[in-house]
Amino acid sequence: MKLAVIGLGLIGGSMAKDLRRTRFATDIIGVDDNPESAQLALRLGIADRISSLEIAVKEADIVIVAIPVDKIVRLLPYILDHIPASTTVIDVGSTKREIAGVVKGHTLRGNFIPSHPMAGTENSGPAAAVENLFDGKICIICDHDKCRPQHLALAEKMYQSLGMPIAYMTSDEQDHTSAFISHLPHATSFVLANAVLAIEDRNIIFDLASGGFQSTVRLAKSSPEMWAPIFWQNRDYICEALEVYIHHLEEFKESLNNSDDKQLSELIVSANKIRGVLDGDNSSLTKNEETIIKFYTK
Amino acid sequence: MKLAVIGLGLIGGSMAKDLRRTRFATDIIGVDDNPESAQLALRLGIADRISSLEIAVKEADIVIVAIPVDKIVRLLPYILDHIPASTTVIDVGSTKREIAGVVKGHTLRGNFIPSHPMAGTENSGPAAAVENLFDGKICIICDHDKCRPQHLALAEKMYQSLGMPIAYMTSDEQDHTSAFISHLPHATSFVLANAVLAIEDRNIIFDLASGGFQSTVRLAKSSPEMWAPIFWQNRDYICEALEVYIHHLEEFKESLNNSDDKQLSELIVSANKIRGVLDGDNSSLTKNEETIIKFYTK
Repeated sequence: MKLAVIGLGLIGGSMAKDLRRTRFATDIIGVDDNPESAQLALRLGIADRISSLEIAVKEADIVIVAIPVDKIVRLLPYILDHIPASTTVIDVGSTKREIAGVVKGHTLRGNFIPSHPMAGTENSGPAAAVENLFDGKICIICDHDKCRPQHLALAEKMYQSLGMPIAYMTSDEQDHTSAFISHLPHATSFVLANAVLAIEDRNIIFDLASGGFQSTVRLAKSSPEMWAPIFWQNRDYICEALEVYIHHLEEFKESLNNSDDKQLSELIVSANKIRGVLDGDNSSLTKNEETIIKFYTK
Repeated sequence: MKLAVIGLGLIGGSMAKDLRRTRFATDIIGVDDNPESAQLALRLGIADRISSLEIAVKEADIVIVAIPVDKIVRLLPYILDHIPASTTVIDVGSTKREIAGVVKGHTLRGNFIPSHPMAGTENSGPAAAVENLFDGKICIICDHDKCRPQHLALAEKMYQSLGMPIAYMTSDEQDHTSAFISHLPHATSFVLANAVLAIEDRNIIFDLASGGFQSTVRLAKSSPEMWAPIFWQNRDYICEALEVYIHHLEEFKESLNNSDDKQLSELIVSANKIRGVLDGDNSSLTKNEETIIKFYTK
C-alpha cells in the first residue's frame, strides 16, 4: 500500500517506521515543509522519497496528516479537495473539534478519519522517530458515524497493525478527556518548570534534580510548535481542567495553612488511588459497564 | 564496620544493600517497628540480624536513621541519649530544620550528621529497596560546622562509597531548595492525580493514560506515612513554592483566557529551558561561581 506521510516528525516518522516494518506500507512518500527535516527523514529511511504535497496526495492510498494541529486545520480542506475519491485521509492531532469542523460539509468528509493515537515523547523531529511507540497504547477514533465504512475499516486495520486498541468517541468527548489526561499534565509540567526556574539557580537545579523532579517536568521539554496550537484549540476544556486543578491545589495549600494534618493525609491517600488505576489493579473499583461499551464498541 | 539501620524501607534498605556490596559495612543490624518489615528485610538479606533500637544503638559504629521525618524528630534525642560517645548518627530525612532543632543543645550534637541523599522512587518498604539507587545523585549535608570532624569524615566516606557527590548547606537552605526541587513536584503530582480522579472515570484513565500522564503522576503513588510529615515540617517553604507555582499557573490560564498566543508560546519556550538545565547543556547559562563554591566547598 502506498502511504503519504505529511509531517516527518516524532509521530509521522514513528508511524512510518512501524507501518513499513509490519509491511502495511510498501511505499512511503514523505512530505515536510522543512527541507532539512525531509532530507533527514530520507536518510533515516523513514520515507522512500520526498515529494510535494500536491503530488503526494494524488498518488497515495492513505494520507496521514501528522503536523501541528493549527497546520492540520489549514491543510486538511486542501487535502480533501485534491485526493482521488478512493483515498483515505487520517489525521493524528491531539485535538479534534476544530479539525473535524473545517471539513464538516466537504463532499469527501467520509474519506477522513479523525484520530488521536495516544502516544508520544517529549522529543520532536525525524530524529525523534522510534519503533514501537504505539504498541499497546490506545488510539481514539472520533465521529466514526461520519466516516465511510471502507475508509474507517482501513484506518482501523492500520492502527491494529501498530498494535493499538481503538476507542470510539465524539470529537467533543475526546477533547474533554484529552484536556484532563493529556493536555493538563503538559500544562502542569510547563508551569512547574517555569516556577522552579524563576526561583532556583540553574546550577542548583542541575545538581540537585532527582529522578522525581525529572519525571514531573519531563513534558516541559515538549515543543511550542506542537503544544501552543493544542492548548489554543482546546482552550475551553483546558481552562476547565486548570480550574479543577487549581481548586485541588488550593485545597492542598489550605490543609497546610490550617494545620489540618488529617485533611493532608486524606489528600495523599486519595491521590495514591492513581496507583491502582495505572498499574491495572482496577479490581476494587466499580466498573462502569456503560463506559466500557461506549469505548470499545461502535 | 558495624551499621545499625533504623527503618528498613526504600532508603534504609537500599543504603544497606549498597554499603554491604561496597564492603563499607560488614555487619548490619536492622531495626523496624513493623515486625513484618523486619522479617522481610532479613529474608531479603538487607540486615544480618534484627534487634531492638536499644541494643542496636549501643552496638553500632554508625546509626543510620531512615524513618519518616516525624519519627526522626521523636527518636533522634533518644538515640543520642543512648549511643556511646564514639558513635556516628546520620539521618536521611527530606527536611532538616526541625530535625536539627530537636538535638540543638545535646551534648553529643557533634556526633550527628543531618543529611538528605536526593534519591528515591515512588515505592516503599523493604521490597522496594534496590541497588545503585544513590550512585551519581547528590547528598546534602547540613550545618556541617556543628558536626565533630571525625563523624563528618565518616559520613562523607559513607556517602562517597555510595557514589554520591556531597553538597554542603545550612538546614534552612536545604529546606528551601528541597521545597522547590523535591517537595513541590510531589505536591503537584498528588494534586494532579486528585484533579483527574475527581473528573474522569477510572476506566477511561486506565485505558487512555499515555506515558506523559504516567510520568507526571508517578510521584502521586508515594506513601502518606513518608510524605505528610515532610509537607508538615516544611510547610512554610512549601506554601511559598505552591504560591509561586499557582501564580505561574494563573498566568498560563490567563494567556488562554485572554487569547494571548504570543504569551502562551513564550511560556512554553521559557519552560523548554529546563531541557538544557536537566540534560547538562548548561553552557549557554550564566554560571554563578559563588553558588558553585557554596555548594562544593565547606
